[in-house]
Amino acid sequence: MSKFWSEAVKRCDPYVPGEQMNNPNILKLNTNENPNPPSPNVMEAINKEMERKLNLYPSPTVDQLRNEIAAYYHLAKENIFVGNGSDEVLAFSFMAFFEPGKKIRFPAISYSFYPVYAKLFNIPYEEIPLNRDFTLPVEDFFQSEGGVIFPNPNAPTSVYLGLDAIEEILQSNPNQMVIIDEAYIDFALESAVSLIATYDNLLVVQTMSKSRSLAGLRVGFALGNPNAIEALTRIKDSFNSYTLDRLAIVGAEAAMKDTDYFIATTQKIIQTREWVITEMKKRGFYVVPSKANFIFASHYTKSALGLYTALKENEVLVRHFNKPDIDNYLRITIGTDNDMKLFFQKLDDILEKASTLS
Amino acid sequence: MSKFWSEAVKRCDPYVPGEQMNNPNILKLNTNENPNPPSPNVMEAINKEMERKLNLYPSPTVDQLRNEIAAYYHLAKENIFVGNGSDEVLAFSFMAFFEPGKKIRFPAISYSFYPVYAKLFNIPYEEIPLNRDFTLPVEDFFQSEGGVIFPNPNAPTSVYLGLDAIEEILQSNPNQMVIIDEAYIDFALESAVSLIATYDNLLVVQTMSKSRSLAGLRVGFALGNPNAIEALTRIKDSFNSYTLDRLAIVGAEAAMKDTDYFIATTQKIIQTREWVITEMKKRGFYVVPSKANFIFASHYTKSALGLYTALKENEVLVRHFNKPDIDNYLRITIGTDNDMKLFFQKLDDILEKASTLS
Repeated sequence: MSKFWSEAVKRCDPYVPGEQMNNPNILKLNTNENPNPPSPNVMEAINKEMERKLNLYPSPTVDQLRNEIAAYYHLAKENIFVGNGSDEVLAFSFMAFFEPGKKIRFPAISYSFYPVYAKLFNIPYEEIPLNRDFTLPVEDFFQSEGGVIFPNPNAPTSVYLGLDAIEEILQSNPNQMVIIDEAYIDFALESAVSLIATYDNLLVVQTMSKSRSLAGLRVGFALGNPNAIEALTRIKDSFNSYTLDRLAIVGAEAAMKDTDYFIATTQKIIQTREWVITEMKKRGFYVVPSKANFIFASHYTKSALGLYTALKENEVLVRHFNKPDIDNYLRITIGTDNDMKLFFQKLDDILEKASTLS
Repeated sequence: MSKFWSEAVKRCDPYVPGEQMNNPNILKLNTNENPNPPSPNVMEAINKEMERKLNLYPSPTVDQLRNEIAAYYHLAKENIFVGNGSDEVLAFSFMAFFEPGKKIRFPAISYSFYPVYAKLFNIPYEEIPLNRDFTLPVEDFFQSEGGVIFPNPNAPTSVYLGLDAIEEILQSNPNQMVIIDEAYIDFALESAVSLIATYDNLLVVQTMSKSRSLAGLRVGFALGNPNAIEALTRIKDSFNSYTLDRLAIVGAEAAMKDTDYFIATTQKIIQTREWVITEMKKRGFYVVPSKANFIFASHYTKSALGLYTALKENEVLVRHFNKPDIDNYLRITIGTDNDMKLFFQKLDDILEKASTLS
């Protein structure tokens, strides 16, 4: 604390991302990264761009990348906003659509960055408890005062909400923005993007960090009505003219264009996920039905914190949240088949030792 | 305008960066970029990093780059904050140190992003008129209510303020932050970094976009007391955990380490600048004494807007500000010797035509 700190610095409560360890031997299943490298076209595009002009500013409007994203979703460039990771897009969205004095709603168990943004921007919020099976209590999001935000699939629970329910929430909030944070949608079912033409209060936020294997490049985007995109652009142009660097822009373009690679790698992760769920159940875990690139699981007899600690000692990093209702769950990212075989090998050792000891 | 827009979107007045044109034949002297490519080590470092893990998140704390910057300035990592271009660092600084309800001060002729930030974050401000020779009226910055920010050298005037004057401003604002925006300092004289050990109300902001030839990579940084750096970190971690991507981090590290290249290229620009100033004077221009990688010049008889337009028609882009007191000036970035020879060739054609016509 210092006399120079603004009220914003004093009231904010920074987000703590999943641990990033320097140990190269660690099996990292804690931050929902994609185990596959990005499309080879990404590296090629970056190499080409490097030969050009790193000394010159990138495009402030990022038209070409926005066109690529628009083409993929059969939308127009005016429906697309791009930012430095979906976290930045979410921060701009809180500034653009939520208001100090008007209470917003998000699930009590959800992406833990939402309350962090709300505190930073002084936006009051209500945390809506999930149903006991971690599904979203849809009606509790009707008629909000200041807007609604939730991830779909939700994190860290991995539960997907159908578009019918999302439409009900949109219809019951005609004067508030409803932000659907689709970081994991490519491992799930239908995106809410198809509703953009009908609902001007819908903003869909996506990221290239998960399904496009580009967590290291920091590219996220929002899709919505041109009026909503204009609001985000006004905020961004009052904050930082160039949020994406030249290499991130061309890398993201190449990733967006390589649909074959995208489909092959996401399908593979879904396949591995289904196999992992079966294997977890065999080992006495309850696994929440997952539509993401991670699972959320609880052992019937062993404590999640104990398993987290034992796994970490064995160079496997998963995520544990020290939070009521979910403190006996582990969030485990789906890696490659080999990653998950190694995971089960270490998990089996731990479970075996535990049963010998008891 | 839309019913979904927040008050922040409505009140903000976005910054308009210098034009970025697609025409590859254009001689671009309008956004103060460095005409030299970055150190070859930058490309090598990026290539190496690409072979590694673009699918994994970058470091949220960016320790290694902060260590490199600290080493260059004989400071500690705790004195260094890094961000996605100095514009982002400035935005975070406005949030961290300035307060709605407390009036800040900056020069009336200055970086035009400052009023943009102030409007976005609802911070009241006073624009202090410069002296007639564009020097800073030092005493007008004493005892500010909410803090002080100005570039040194100033933009777009190119005028440098000595450290003695900066110390007076620091001493007369013991309870307010004084932010010195040193985007162009490497083309000038002494940096205020040497004052950090003495003044806990000083924040120095720098960028890799100019002297390190990395405008395309988006890396800026702040130097200050660990308490000030902690405030910026709290804001950043409440906004976006990873603002620098993996390639920007390693590229910036390599640029920071290659001191020989840095010195050679900045010295060359200074040399070219001095030659350009002489040549401008020969052609009837008044040139403000420059300590930056650009000059600010006004012709004794020809209008700046007319020259700007004629140059643009001849594929030379410089910057003209349609603003009282400076609307008869052109801001011209210093390019390579060849760039500037081409510039003078086209300028001479224009001046000759103009005198034939009159």
